[in-house]
Amino acid sequence: MGEDYKSMWMELGLDLDGHDALLNVLAQAYNDIFLSQKDRPETMSYFDFVMSEVHGLRIRELLEEKKTGRKIIGSYCVFVPEEIALAANATLIGLCSGADFATDEVEKLLPRNTCALIKSSFGFKLGKVCPYLESADMIVGENTCDGKKKSYESFKSLVDNLYIMDLPQVKSEQGRELLKNEYFRFKKAVEELTGVTITADSLKDAIRTVNAKRAAVHRLSLLRRHDPAPISGLDALLANQIFFYDNPARFTQSVNAICEELEKRVQKKDGAFPAKTVRILLSGCPQAVPNWKLPAIVEQSGAVIVGEESCVGERGCRNLTDDSGNSVDEMMEAIIDRYFKIDCAIFTPNGERIDHIKEMSKTYRADGVIHYGLQFCQPYLMEAIPVERALEKESIPCLRIETDYSMEDAGQLTTRVEAFIEQLR
Amino acid sequence: MGEDYKSMWMELGLDLDGHDALLNVLAQAYNDIFLSQKDRPETMSYFDFVMSEVHGLRIRELLEEKKTGRKIIGSYCVFVPEEIALAANATLIGLCSGADFATDEVEKLLPRNTCALIKSSFGFKLGKVCPYLESADMIVGENTCDGKKKSYESFKSLVDNLYIMDLPQVKSEQGRELLKNEYFRFKKAVEELTGVTITADSLKDAIRTVNAKRAAVHRLSLLRRHDPAPISGLDALLANQIFFYDNPARFTQSVNAICEELEKRVQKKDGAFPAKTVRILLSGCPQAVPNWKLPAIVEQSGAVIVGEESCVGERGCRNLTDDSGNSVDEMMEAIIDRYFKIDCAIFTPNGERIDHIKEMSKTYRADGVIHYGLQFCQPYLMEAIPVERALEKESIPCLRIETDYSMEDAGQLTTRVEAFIEQLR
Repeated sequence: MGEDYKSMWMELGLDLDGHDALLNVLAQAYNDIFLSQKDRPETMSYFDFVMSEVHGLRIRELLEEKKTGRKIIGSYCVFVPEEIALAANATLIGLCSGADFATDEVEKLLPRNTCALIKSSFGFKLGKVCPYLESADMIVGENTCDGKKKSYESFKSLVDNLYIMDLPQVKSEQGRELLKNEYFRFKKAVEELTGVTITADSLKDAIRTVNAKRAAVHRLSLLRRHDPAPISGLDALLANQIFFYDNPARFTQSVNAICEELEKRVQKKDGAFPAKTVRILLSGCPQAVPNWKLPAIVEQSGAVIVGEESCVGERGCRNLTDDSGNSVDEMMEAIIDRYFKIDCAIFTPNGERIDHIKEMSKTYRADGVIHYGLQFCQPYLMEAIPVERALEKESIPCLRIETDYSMEDAGQLTTRVEAFIEQLR
Repeated sequence: MGEDYKSMWMELGLDLDGHDALLNVLAQAYNDIFLSQKDRPETMSYFDFVMSEVHGLRIRELLEEKKTGRKIIGSYCVFVPEEIALAANATLIGLCSGADFATDEVEKLLPRNTCALIKSSFGFKLGKVCPYLESADMIVGENTCDGKKKSYESFKSLVDNLYIMDLPQVKSEQGRELLKNEYFRFKKAVEELTGVTITADSLKDAIRTVNAKRAAVHRLSLLRRHDPAPISGLDALLANQIFFYDNPARFTQSVNAICEELEKRVQKKDGAFPAKTVRILLSGCPQAVPNWKLPAIVEQSGAVIVGEESCVGERGCRNLTDDSGNSVDEMMEAIIDRYFKIDCAIFTPNGERIDHIKEMSKTYRADGVIHYGLQFCQPYLMEAIPVERALEKESIPCLRIETDYSMEDAGQLTTRVEAFIEQLR
């Protein structure tokens, strides 16, 4: 990224040396993992550009928005409804949590046995290397897992604009009621932040904008069911990751452009990998930028990832919101219905996630499932065992991986992944 | 325990060899840890007897109760209201979870990185060594931490009478509403189980019975504020542990008998340890029978434990229920109020726990606090850090311990505990 962003980063209070180090690692990883791929769709060049400007141009855009009075809301979870932010003239962005940073400082505030994602969110704040976090007028934490829920209590001392959203643990009538109350409370908080009252028109527009974004990603996903897969899992994951950062309308347009290219590829039977390549469904914990370790290992081991059953993937995108309501309340109900369907492992029981993994395996014609669990992520690690058992019953091989963000286990992971792929050939 | 229980254990489906092995370990540990103590109150002999018959006479009593049609309800958590069970003519008992058992089998169902308490509850079932569990007509699981919440999904396949109670995560109006709905749903389920409708009279009686039990334990606790402490922490912990197993009325009477003896001791300045012994408050995760490792290390290192800020301790016992209501609904509200005060680390935020630890430190005149966190127990391990910081501000030294049920770290723990005690002298 160009020299000219330095003053912007300084004004945001970033630690320039640390931030430079992070960007260098990111650029190197992107080069090694993404740019080295063969037969990429040409339209991926947009995302290459986005990534090369992830802390530059996009931040400048957000700061320009802020100058016009628009508010920026940062979030760590797909339960925070973008529709409500957009309808109140705010921008919602996903916050950085895909790399280890300032770990020594983090472990003064969090137990060592905390998952890498949570540690990362603390590290990016403590290390002052996340321009998104520093641009945010409001940061939303949510009571999902114990780790996040309890860590926000300490995070509150690091930021002065943390808003906590409670979430249900059970999909009961009462659970939906809790979500409803929390979404209405969030709507009010966002309206207070922006000074903009959400109207039926603005909410309908917002729902349509987000639906279009999700529909585009879903269109991309469905193209991956073909053999040969027209796009690598890494590139598709990248689109799912940028979903959380980019301007929604531009993102939608760019993903649709990729889809058009992929449709032609499918007709010509051009693939990112040869036909008959072993096909893997990745399922489990979210993979935030630049957490590309496991998918890189899978695809460098000669398999292609054909789907992500993850928050950064189909779990976050699959359901659209009914936009037919005429009043704010009707559309709020539709939003609640849509988000209440998310089959996150924080819910108990969560059988629909297992059904969905089986369904995705069929839709995307996966030869096997790799369950990706972040170390110390109790909800997903616990659910991985019944997931594996359910897949076994359907004769779908499953490999359970438990890892973190360090590269220490890369060799061992490669060996296990290669053996799994070999078994699927 | 006598030979004559064998047929009872066989009828309950216990694995006799495994059960014998467990009882032998238990008896040996009890001998080494409890009976070897000097200057014990004579009235502790009742609890020695209870422990010697913990899987014998008490189980026979429960089976006798069952013969008369009374139902047994097993629970793993202090959020399950004993008042409701008693009022419907059922007996509530705490279920075994204080020792490692059948770990290899457990780790087929649960991730290795699961806390020892949860693993133990699975191990006792898989190893068929818990007569309480096998006697229970209903087993109540609760959505407290992620570990328990998600593990019950697998536990359901091991037992056929698991009832799940949802719990709030926030002490909001809505959180209380959730607890209220859940307690009324539990009341209905218990009434269905027993065929007994709870009346104002039966509920008042039940509240009084449980209040008396809690008041007796609290009376015992308060006697420990004296120097010399009239009873060891181990013996007091034992009373808190047996709280969950024994017949309530007999337990109350027995604890009050201990209190009478201790009152005399206080007058005579007789202590379980000499005056001026370093005084420790233990705070954190629950310690179920036979999880005596840390308190044994503390007291064998020459300090006396003067309080347990724990579910098996003051967190579980401290608040009584208002029994002045005239209707079932009024008393149910009082029960909800009472349980909603429990300052478990599953709540966010949970500042009242920190206040309570500070208050207990003063009341019991502790020289320092040892925070006991079970490995992989995210709520308590995360909260331990702000607890330590808050105590530091009050100049109360705090030692954070993270351990499990194995004896592998006993040497290392002893070294750390001894150094901490030395610092307090």
